[in-house]
Amino acid sequence: MSPRDRSTVPESDLSIDPRETVRILTGFIRAEVERTGVSRMVVGLSGGLDSAVAAYLAARALGSESVVGVLMPCRTSSPDSAADAEKVVGALGIMGERIDISTIVDAYSTLLGRVSRNRLGNIMARARMTLLYDRSVIHRALVLGTSNKTELLLGYGTLHGDLASAINPLGDLYKTQVRALAAHLKVPLSIRRKPPSADLWPDQSDEGEFGFSYDEADRLLALLIDARVSRATAIAAGYKATLVDRVTRLVVRSHFKRRLPVIAKVSTRSVGWDFRYPRDWRS
Amino acid sequence: MSPRDRSTVPESDLSIDPRETVRILTGFIRAEVERTGVSRMVVGLSGGLDSAVAAYLAARALGSESVVGVLMPCRTSSPDSAADAEKVVGALGIMGERIDISTIVDAYSTLLGRVSRNRLGNIMARARMTLLYDRSVIHRALVLGTSNKTELLLGYGTLHGDLASAINPLGDLYKTQVRALAAHLKVPLSIRRKPPSADLWPDQSDEGEFGFSYDEADRLLALLIDARVSRATAIAAGYKATLVDRVTRLVVRSHFKRRLPVIAKVSTRSVGWDFRYPRDWRS
Repeated sequence: MSPRDRSTVPESDLSIDPRETVRILTGFIRAEVERTGVSRMVVGLSGGLDSAVAAYLAARALGSESVVGVLMPCRTSSPDSAADAEKVVGALGIMGERIDISTIVDAYSTLLGRVSRNRLGNIMARARMTLLYDRSVIHRALVLGTSNKTELLLGYGTLHGDLASAINPLGDLYKTQVRALAAHLKVPLSIRRKPPSADLWPDQSDEGEFGFSYDEADRLLALLIDARVSRATAIAAGYKATLVDRVTRLVVRSHFKRRLPVIAKVSTRSVGWDFRYPRDWRS
Repeated sequence: MSPRDRSTVPESDLSIDPRETVRILTGFIRAEVERTGVSRMVVGLSGGLDSAVAAYLAARALGSESVVGVLMPCRTSSPDSAADAEKVVGALGIMGERIDISTIVDAYSTLLGRVSRNRLGNIMARARMTLLYDRSVIHRALVLGTSNKTELLLGYGTLHGDLASAINPLGDLYKTQVRALAAHLKVPLSIRRKPPSADLWPDQSDEGEFGFSYDEADRLLALLIDARVSRATAIAAGYKATLVDRVTRLVVRSHFKRRLPVIAKVSTRSVGWDFRYPRDWRS
């Protein structure tokens, strides 16, 4: 590829206008909540960046009295995580609840015997989903999603666990964009500065597990997904072939996490195929 | 409406060709399993009709050595349920596993205090989902869905609980059609003859909770959904207005159970909006 061709390679533009993005996302939250007839949201607060930003957006959209933050630590969670989650509750003045999931996880472990930490991570994420959906019934609230676009595309999350929600204001923002939003929203520095982690075991870090940084992954994903460039063009733009292939494989392999169960179609109008349009069915 | 108009009201046609339907559904299961590169399926066997039929289809599609039936009774489950689930395991010669979920449910109850039976039902369904997905990792298998079209349309199931699966061969068949398939597949009579129940508490029955029968609901749903007739036409066809309105309300209110989390769209290509086509992304 000649230097001239190379100049036509699109650059990843991850810049966002934080003020305008906050306006869009708070409007989205208000509209979705009104549409469903409830007036509150529950959000699982991990102490991490994404759930903090989601809570800040929900509190701006609905008022702090309409948001419930649920802390669900486990005995393997870092104590810093709960402290940071408490900071969010305090800073926003939202209602906070705390439920330690250790006894639930123990019940699973006792039944299943020796469980690898990946399996245990899925069990913990699903226990938290179960509690969060239960709290949503009690508070007559929707479950607020906190997965960002990077995680959704790379499949870095548990299906029917942390990926489960009613509405998700962050799902179309890459991790680096969520960071920019967090700075604008004045999310506490301790939350913005620590390395991203699922906090399922000590010293776990997202970037350690990936083997690449969010900065790198986000710029590459923006090229491959948003700008729809080919493998060859991404490599010409300066990304290592091994990184392009690894990221592509993660996206392909995690398709099942971004879709509904596949239903065998045998009739004229089928759930998940041609019957999925609420508009036909407003009462 | 005159009798002449009335003759133009479409009739619900719920008849199926069982042999052809089995051919389509076993082909569907084989194709989906091959596509994902695994070779097995796990299915939660409740002792009820739907999971039995799903297991029969999977065993026909893949061979009995490739299907694992997981029994997950609770101390509140009917003993007949486990006995019927064992019959399916025995009749098909598939591998059977049994995990009693009582201690898991107890751990939730202890944390949450007094829990209504509806909330407990959701907790039980999600505990079973958690175990079934864990077993699917161990067996390198897909989770087989068992929700039928009637349940999916009426929202009679737990989101991220029994509604969760990788592939679902029954989701486009009404309950009465699943019954016809069960007879053709020679599912044990005790399973075919008992009243449908979620078996979450003693003497629970689907039809008791609905306040109408599956026969009635299926014929009405086939009119409203498949034949797309209006409320007025359904009433003219002989259905009570109260039934039409109640069934319609159940369908409308359960839309959230048939869709993915709603993601706020802020970019050019967004998960759940314009990035959901595996075809672009086969490696």
